[in-house]
Amino acid sequence: MSASSTPLFTGVVPPVATPLLPDGGVDHASLERLVDYLVTSGVHGLFALGSTGETAYFTDDQRVEILRTIVSAGAGRVPVIAGAIDLTSARIAALGRRLVETGADAVVTTAPLYTLNSPGEVDRHFRAIAAGVDAPLWAYDVPVRVHSKLGLGLLMDLATDGVIAGVKDSSGDDVGFRRLVAANQAAGHPLQLLTGHEVVVDAMLLAGADGVVPGFANVEATGYVRLWDAAVRGDWAAARAEQERLNRAFEIVFQPQGLSGDATGVGAFKAAMKARGIIDHATMAFPTQPLDEIAVERIHGILAELDLLPDATRTGAASPGSAS
Amino acid sequence: MSASSTPLFTGVVPPVATPLLPDGGVDHASLERLVDYLVTSGVHGLFALGSTGETAYFTDDQRVEILRTIVSAGAGRVPVIAGAIDLTSARIAALGRRLVETGADAVVTTAPLYTLNSPGEVDRHFRAIAAGVDAPLWAYDVPVRVHSKLGLGLLMDLATDGVIAGVKDSSGDDVGFRRLVAANQAAGHPLQLLTGHEVVVDAMLLAGADGVVPGFANVEATGYVRLWDAAVRGDWAAARAEQERLNRAFEIVFQPQGLSGDATGVGAFKAAMKARGIIDHATMAFPTQPLDEIAVERIHGILAELDLLPDATRTGAASPGSAS
Amino acid sequence: MSASSTPLFTGVVPPVATPLLPDGGVDHASLERLVDYLVTSGVHGLFALGSTGETAYFTDDQRVEILRTIVSAGAGRVPVIAGAIDLTSARIAALGRRLVETGADAVVTTAPLYTLNSPGEVDRHFRAIAAGVDAPLWAYDVPVRVHSKLGLGLLMDLATDGVIAGVKDSSGDDVGFRRLVAANQAAGHPLQLLTGHEVVVDAMLLAGADGVVPGFANVEATGYVRLWDAAVRGDWAAARAEQERLNRAFEIVFQPQGLSGDATGVGAFKAAMKARGIIDHATMAFPTQPLDEIAVERIHGILAELDLLPDATRTGAASPGSAS
Amino acid sequence: MSASSTPLFTGVVPPVATPLLPDGGVDHASLERLVDYLVTSGVHGLFALGSTGETAYFTDDQRVEILRTIVSAGAGRVPVIAGAIDLTSARIAALGRRLVETGADAVVTTAPLYTLNSPGEVDRHFRAIAAGVDAPLWAYDVPVRVHSKLGLGLLMDLATDGVIAGVKDSSGDDVGFRRLVAANQAAGHPLQLLTGHEVVVDAMLLAGADGVVPGFANVEATGYVRLWDAAVRGDWAAARAEQERLNRAFEIVFQPQGLSGDATGVGAFKAAMKARGIIDHATMAFPTQPLDEIAVERIHGILAELDLLPDATRTGAASPGSAS
Repeated sequence: MSASSTPLFTGVVPPVATPLLPDGGVDHASLERLVDYLVTSGVHGLFALGSTGETAYFTDDQRVEILRTIVSAGAGRVPVIAGAIDLTSARIAALGRRLVETGADAVVTTAPLYTLNSPGEVDRHFRAIAAGVDAPLWAYDVPVRVHSKLGLGLLMDLATDGVIAGVKDSSGDDVGFRRLVAANQAAGHPLQLLTGHEVVVDAMLLAGADGVVPGFANVEATGYVRLWDAAVRGDWAAARAEQERLNRAFEIVFQPQGLSGDATGVGAFKAAMKARGIIDHATMAFPTQPLDEIAVERIHGILAELDLLPDATRTGAASPGSAS
Repeated sequence: MSASSTPLFTGVVPPVATPLLPDGGVDHASLERLVDYLVTSGVHGLFALGSTGETAYFTDDQRVEILRTIVSAGAGRVPVIAGAIDLTSARIAALGRRLVETGADAVVTTAPLYTLNSPGEVDRHFRAIAAGVDAPLWAYDVPVRVHSKLGLGLLMDLATDGVIAGVKDSSGDDVGFRRLVAANQAAGHPLQLLTGHEVVVDAMLLAGADGVVPGFANVEATGYVRLWDAAVRGDWAAARAEQERLNRAFEIVFQPQGLSGDATGVGAFKAAMKARGIIDHATMAFPTQPLDEIAVERIHGILAELDLLPDATRTGAASPGSAS
Repeated sequence: MSASSTPLFTGVVPPVATPLLPDGGVDHASLERLVDYLVTSGVHGLFALGSTGETAYFTDDQRVEILRTIVSAGAGRVPVIAGAIDLTSARIAALGRRLVETGADAVVTTAPLYTLNSPGEVDRHFRAIAAGVDAPLWAYDVPVRVHSKLGLGLLMDLATDGVIAGVKDSSGDDVGFRRLVAANQAAGHPLQLLTGHEVVVDAMLLAGADGVVPGFANVEATGYVRLWDAAVRGDWAAARAEQERLNRAFEIVFQPQGLSGDATGVGAFKAAMKARGIIDHATMAFPTQPLDEIAVERIHGILAELDLLPDATRTGAASPGSAS
Repeated sequence: MSASSTPLFTGVVPPVATPLLPDGGVDHASLERLVDYLVTSGVHGLFALGSTGETAYFTDDQRVEILRTIVSAGAGRVPVIAGAIDLTSARIAALGRRLVETGADAVVTTAPLYTLNSPGEVDRHFRAIAAGVDAPLWAYDVPVRVHSKLGLGLLMDLATDGVIAGVKDSSGDDVGFRRLVAANQAAGHPLQLLTGHEVVVDAMLLAGADGVVPGFANVEATGYVRLWDAAVRGDWAAARAEQERLNRAFEIVFQPQGLSGDATGVGAFKAAMKARGIIDHATMAFPTQPLDEIAVERIHGILAELDLLPDATRTGAASPGSAS
């Protein structure tokens, strides 16, 4: 349970999307293809059952099923961290155990949902889960969904006591993240710190992040790998240039109009993944509403402009690797 | 599934607290005593597995166990509505079916948690749950926990289509509630509308609420029954006088200092219930932090001043009925 | 400065709208007519320069000009309380002095704007203003605009020290308001407590409010006077019936679509006031956007259904008194 | 009024603090010394009357007086941009004209305060101010104070129409800022974009910011100049190292406990400025509460550790230039 000194999850750790069949069932064939695409593109780990994976919409049995395919398709080539998203400690620990049994190398979860807790209670929450799950535990800080922020003191207490091994930060608080980086460094780097803000990865790596969890990697993973490699060798101009190219592509998520937060981001990714031939259907988890044709057309236009659409898009077969 | 013209849940429908043993297990003996206390006090229904019942902290198996005791202790004397609190539609429907099998007469749930949905998606969410559970469905509007508000249009659409049979309103938006009352009246009263704001029940009944879900009834249920009876006979001065007495007692929830939202309210209720002999232990669900002695002393002081402490408090045996 | 034992502002104290000429200048003739309409309708006081009066959009010179007309048209028949809305203490006190010189019987203001203050700092803020203005000071609690809430302890401290004489509550927190009523009662009623939530006035008067500040009174003042009279004599059924009639009329504020908060409420009032002949133009303060014709038509429709449109509406002259 | 192609405000543009005498009056002697310290340290512009300057607490006459000293002490060595913080358009334009007459080279303001406006209304607000003030206008995006965010579309519309010349971004939304940088670049760089988030300046400069408004420069300005110079020459490792040193010093703002937002940040700066001999008194604007001795001691400790305290601190005379 203690944080290993060897970083398990650094670099590019994409949140794996969950391809669905038109009837809403999991499209395991597409999922296998997606995982293989990610791994062969050079990503350093896989983040299963996260928000981009629409995990909240699935039952625990479905989640286990999804994770099983990801683990099996990954075939041990990269480590897999899996989200255990549920309301409270006992529920999360039970789910976490199932995920570890299914092959997750680490488990990541949030503060309690629905309840009204103090930082001290959130601290006990993470400790109980860590004690109940036989794998490294990560904290997921995503206030837009959890509606509370994991504080610096809380995270460093959990880190120095070996309760958590890392943080996925989707807090949108770059000032807080910078302070966390500094505190973590001062404490001997017990935490791996991944940012979820994929349009500022160059900046966050300069600021000291250990890696990134980019949803857009489901569409094109090679760009983030190049960005990471540039940062590792200290070529910040190259990192920035790659980030700026990725950001032009990321504009696909701003095309859907009038849809929910869950429909726009993941919806745009799935539309683009389908266009690139990575998955077969852009079906969203129920009750998320689908993109209209105008949004899909605009997404195709952005991809085409960046040469991210295979020639085959309009003729049938498509090979994601060829275009990126 | 359609809303019955006969109100199933009107009047005083307390959210049943969940007594726990010192080791955190459910104290079924105390729970039976509590249910019996509530029913013999004249309440009109029981709201099982709500926020006051700390339901979010329990596994589904524990929830079923808790509901089973409530149903069995209620013995059909009043109807039971049960909270199915989980993240999303399929999970909630599966849980709802278990609750109905266990004896719930109706099921109540919220908009999705953790996810980012549009009103249209929330509409589909409730429709899917209603289609998947063989009992009347209620909507629970509690933005402080769910972080979104159920809109007037959404609720009335669901009402007129027979999807939901009632709303428990803990939104704190009395203006919105008044508009809902008016729209519901104009539509032929398809919804039963219960308020969760127990310190303004006289006002909300005057405004047209069909009943109340008062957490403090776990401490003293007879007051709310008297308040309701006064309102029914149009004696608003008596209703107000009873409300004001109850509000003096309700000040117990403001005694804990520096604790979380979940620790203070339910913590104060449990401390008072124990003091009155209704339950044996004031244990809170993990990881909620317990009240300190100062808070408990002050709670005792408020109860004593209002003659709500049995003489026996300091000597051992206590009979809740005798003091109220 | 100390709170008088004789209530200065109880009953119906409408927030006086500011009629404007098409070029944006103050329409003093319409403003005089409006004030006369309100006073002859039986209101008990006038709330000048509040949010409904669009005060934030005017310079201090314009505000003084507006207040001068209100005071002059009121002619001492009812007391006038004036809003001194500015960022911080010294600015507010200077403005407050000008308002008192212009004839305001009391001044009302909020916590500081733009700044980030603690409750202790807000306390000092109100004390400094009270010391700098030679008239009773009221606190205006409107979190939707000020983005902080005036707490119970703060208000009661200011009350018992004679710093503030009353509170206008537009907090939307009926639970907090009920606690304030109780604490104020326990302290000997040092504060007059007016609610700004005009669709629940019956309920708030039952709960112990001393009066109401209803924006809709600019459209039809007699209804709120009848509601108040019914509450005073304890006829809560009549109070509720009047409230429900008023609420049907108040639906005009929900007709504008896609406009800002300031455009919808005041815009609907002004459209209705013009339709009833109380003011000559429905011009809004810059940069507030005007209502479209569809909204105006729907507002007319609601007014017509409730017999609130003069026959003369389509032929020219209109007399507000005749229709209500 | 149109955005000049020559950047007026890039690089390090500190928000000038407002030194006060113990009686609350402006300490012009200290203010002159502060301005001279900043300019001789190599900053590229001065941001007068911003949040760090406590501008909201001053009357317009005081603001003019403060600006006059800043302009006179700056003596044309660097340009001065001045905050015109007030509720709404006409008030801001009038104040802006006074600031330009007093010597401001540009004026910066926010969306309206207190009011409830749509983006279209905020657009008209900025256009009216720009038309009414004879100097370049900047937009200040600070949702923590204004409680609304300036959107990308709004800012770029104002930019391409030549209404605004720059944006000071204190939104804490690094994703939004990155999109603004990209859109501004695509439009030919009509806007100068300054970040107010001083602990991530290296990262924001890498991301494309044109400069920074660092409050801590009031304490030590040379570090930010070094950071800027390193970024300009593309030495990101040096920029990061300087940022990290500055961030260790910036920890002074986290020392005050239990104080308001305004008391902690500016209070910590003033305590440090006094300790370094840059100003004579650490007095805060009324009603902001002062730091206690423990906080001041801890601030001294942090400064001493970073060698930012002059030897003379404990003996009397102090020279800010010598220590940095």
